Amino acid sequence: MSSQPSTPAEKTVAEELGADEVQAVDVQEATAAVGVVGMAVMGRNLARNLARHGHVVAIFNRSTARTDEVVVAHGHEGTFVAAPDLTSFVASLARPRRIIVMVQAGAGTDAVIDQLVPLLEEGDIVVDGGNAHYVDTRRREEALRAHGLHFVGAGISGGEVGALEGPSIMPGGSLEAYAALGPILESIAAVVDGEPCCAHMGPDGAGHFVKMVHNGIEYADMQFIAEAYDLLRGAGIEPEAMAGIFRTWNEGDLDSYLIEVTAEVLSQRDARTGGALVDSIVDAAGQKGTGSWTVQAALELGVPVNAIAESVFARASSSHPELRAAARAALDGPVAAAGTTRTPADLETFVEDVRQTLWSAKVVAYAQGLHLIRVASQTYGWDVDIETVARIWRAGCIIRARLLERIRGEYAANDLITLLEAPSIREGLAGTQDSWRRVVGAAAQAGVPVPGFAASLAYYDTLRAERLPAALIQGQRDYFGAHTYRRTDDDGSFHTDWSGDRAELRV
Amino acid sequence: MSSQPSTPAEKTVAEELGADEVQAVDVQEATAAVGVVGMAVMGRNLARNLARHGHVVAIFNRSTARTDEVVVAHGHEGTFVAAPDLTSFVASLARPRRIIVMVQAGAGTDAVIDQLVPLLEEGDIVVDGGNAHYVDTRRREEALRAHGLHFVGAGISGGEVGALEGPSIMPGGSLEAYAALGPILESIAAVVDGEPCCAHMGPDGAGHFVKMVHNGIEYADMQFIAEAYDLLRGAGIEPEAMAGIFRTWNEGDLDSYLIEVTAEVLSQRDARTGGALVDSIVDAAGQKGTGSWTVQAALELGVPVNAIAESVFARASSSHPELRAAARAALDGPVAAAGTTRTPADLETFVEDVRQTLWSAKVVAYAQGLHLIRVASQTYGWDVDIETVARIWRAGCIIRARLLERIRGEYAANDLITLLEAPSIREGLAGTQDSWRRVVGAAAQAGVPVPGFAASLAYYDTLRAERLPAALIQGQRDYFGAHTYRRTDDDGSFHTDWSGDRAELRV
Repeated sequence: MSSQPSTPAEKTVAEELGADEVQAVDVQEATAAVGVVGMAVMGRNLARNLARHGHVVAIFNRSTARTDEVVVAHGHEGTFVAAPDLTSFVASLARPRRIIVMVQAGAGTDAVIDQLVPLLEEGDIVVDGGNAHYVDTRRREEALRAHGLHFVGAGISGGEVGALEGPSIMPGGSLEAYAALGPILESIAAVVDGEPCCAHMGPDGAGHFVKMVHNGIEYADMQFIAEAYDLLRGAGIEPEAMAGIFRTWNEGDLDSYLIEVTAEVLSQRDARTGGALVDSIVDAAGQKGTGSWTVQAALELGVPVNAIAESVFARASSSHPELRAAARAALDGPVAAAGTTRTPADLETFVEDVRQTLWSAKVVAYAQGLHLIRVASQTYGWDVDIETVARIWRAGCIIRARLLERIRGEYAANDLITLLEAPSIREGLAGTQDSWRRVVGAAAQAGVPVPGFAASLAYYDTLRAERLPAALIQGQRDYFGAHTYRRTDDDGSFHTDWSGDRAELRV
Repeated sequence: MSSQPSTPAEKTVAEELGADEVQAVDVQEATAAVGVVGMAVMGRNLARNLARHGHVVAIFNRSTARTDEVVVAHGHEGTFVAAPDLTSFVASLARPRRIIVMVQAGAGTDAVIDQLVPLLEEGDIVVDGGNAHYVDTRRREEALRAHGLHFVGAGISGGEVGALEGPSIMPGGSLEAYAALGPILESIAAVVDGEPCCAHMGPDGAGHFVKMVHNGIEYADMQFIAEAYDLLRGAGIEPEAMAGIFRTWNEGDLDSYLIEVTAEVLSQRDARTGGALVDSIVDAAGQKGTGSWTVQAALELGVPVNAIAESVFARASSSHPELRAAARAALDGPVAAAGTTRTPADLETFVEDVRQTLWSAKVVAYAQGLHLIRVASQTYGWDVDIETVARIWRAGCIIRARLLERIRGEYAANDLITLLEAPSIREGLAGTQDSWRRVVGAAAQAGVPVPGFAASLAYYDTLRAERLPAALIQGQRDYFGAHTYRRTDDDGSFHTDWSGDRAELRV
């Protein structure tokens, strides 16, 4: 059905819904360019976005009322084909069929795939637009490939608003699938300088892996901002004044969506208390798992992502009320509290130090996330192009930031193992490191927890070290477990006969 | 075969081995109290330990030469029954049969179990003494329970020497199995004040979980020592002098096996260079996975273990030569280097500060590991007794330390949510925190990476905070993802209509 109701969307579904009209659609015409399964808010907004860009969109939902609702409320935005069942839904799609599944991740996705597969034909494309774990995506891609079908795990970032107005889209899967699907996805993605924030990331699970890491970086970004807030608050700056500071920061190197969001949240007053809303919010941060996934993937791949890990653990710590209550009652803080005796000039310096620390830590989180993508890409043979990743994160997604254009440029101009070696980044860090060191030291003295700032600095100092004390750890491991060690001046593995004559043996 | 060769063990196997003699054993007698499958070094030493304690030990190995070797070399230490095949091995055991499997973790364990099960009878007990993942142990326990068999996942710590001379043993599984098995295991475990370092940890995977956390704490302990070493080295103290410092520390609160090992390693000279051996060892630390498992389990259970995580990531960082080389070439350190201008008095204070920091961080790592066990125990219904865990870690295992007697005593005397609230621990930390803060600050200034010291301090300051900036994170999450927040002054969940009139809605 091509639906363009003349009635305004404000009327209720009950008023508007002519059931006959909706079901009168001839789904056998196979005119739809793309289909969306699942009309919860993300699926609905993605379908609307597609329709608004001129694509005929088949839509299906387990309960038909939802699809009907979409047609009634948004039919004027484009052309929807509301399918009453999956068979009609599939029949309504032009071939190769492009079906975007937007249902609850996990069992929900598998159930829809199982129902779809018998209805599809060779070359058809099933897209999972949810936050699937990349290992599941690899499994599903392999399973559908055996049926001659394409499976595309596509990370989509930007939340509800992004889905409607232009998200950042990170599709994996085969190049052949991308050839048929990419133009449609690119047409609805966010745009920067005429370039869509959508690109092929690599085979099978590459798209969902990149999206997972995006979320891991998002956790870190938010934790760093929270630490900056905590330090400034400890120095006596109230939320409303701090909102102004964040707005100023948002005009410089820190320019990003999350800084903008922070200023909005901090300036929000609480109608009940008359104070800042942030002071009425319970200080226990929730999480939905993608941050943890990032750290777990890093552990499996042996990639250090300590700044991201600290941000996941900081949320976990905040959400253990019993643990916190027990510790709070027992543990003393430092005798000299920070900030209270600052002069205005000191305070200005401190704020600038915090700003530079925030930028430094943010760079480290990006470096860790991109290095994780690099190693995963090598491990799984994905050949992910990091410049492209940075390019499609510049808009539409939650971590969109001015920094990403710089990162894109650096990866375009240089062959980088780590973002930290990029010329403009290393220069930036050379300039900010004094502030960063001062802030980590001041926080330790003041008793303000800065796990993210401290971890990112430790990462910086670890990677640049000429020698690490890991040599001692290898000696210990050889002593108690005969794990052997390598020598700096010879090839091979060695063991010292610690319990005997302490001669060194080549093993 | 009851083997008590009169010939000395120094003779070769070829000389000693009468094949007829070995195979003449009447394994049908069912006289063996316990059996060990797998005669690699851990299995062999465990079997010898059992035999030395008067147990008749059946032994089996896939290649018979290994069992024969044990009989020839160690038959004089006790009574071995060398079985040529699994059927004879099983037949040689008194019922209920107690079979300790000491083979390569993973597929090796499953293969042995699959071969054993058809040979066993109801009530028999299969023990996995390897470093199995507790999830695998839960799966195996369930599978064998369906056959009427007991499966005991038993963590064994202490390495080769411990297995022979008295390890710390952490068995899980049913109480019924422990009743039949415990006395034998307790007889070969390390002993402190007449108490064996072996106790029933809880059902199914509890034993292997506790062992995994033991190893996680071991990673942290080693990382902290490495950071202390790095700081003292940066202050100009050479390895041999530092060995003396560690020996002194080992007479106080830090008294532990790993400190002792450290002193031994640091005092070891390199025959090739004439310098300290540690300086000839490649500074890339290896790992075998149990540290990672600990962090992954913590992520799954939502338990903050950032100090343990940092120790895992520190090893990972050290083992990325390409990443380190790129960063080293690019990144500047702080302008003012540390330590070089210290007076002897300053240096003495600094050394004492580092000692107190090491103790503080160590306490945090134990607190994190024990909290992880607490949460896992609640999650899986294991009812693990933390006092008992501390008790059996006091000797035999790698993390054995004077601190563990204090921890045991604190858990005996108090109902603790976290170790940090234990009276003597909180007092200790109140006394050490100034040093800890100074060291973390000094390390940041000096450019010495102290991810573990900084993370443990951040954990301390996070848990004792009246308010955490997690409230801001909840505000951000509500702004961009409508994730809702809770209020400090009201029940329920709330959402601010950020893109509308910014009214607060109860959801």
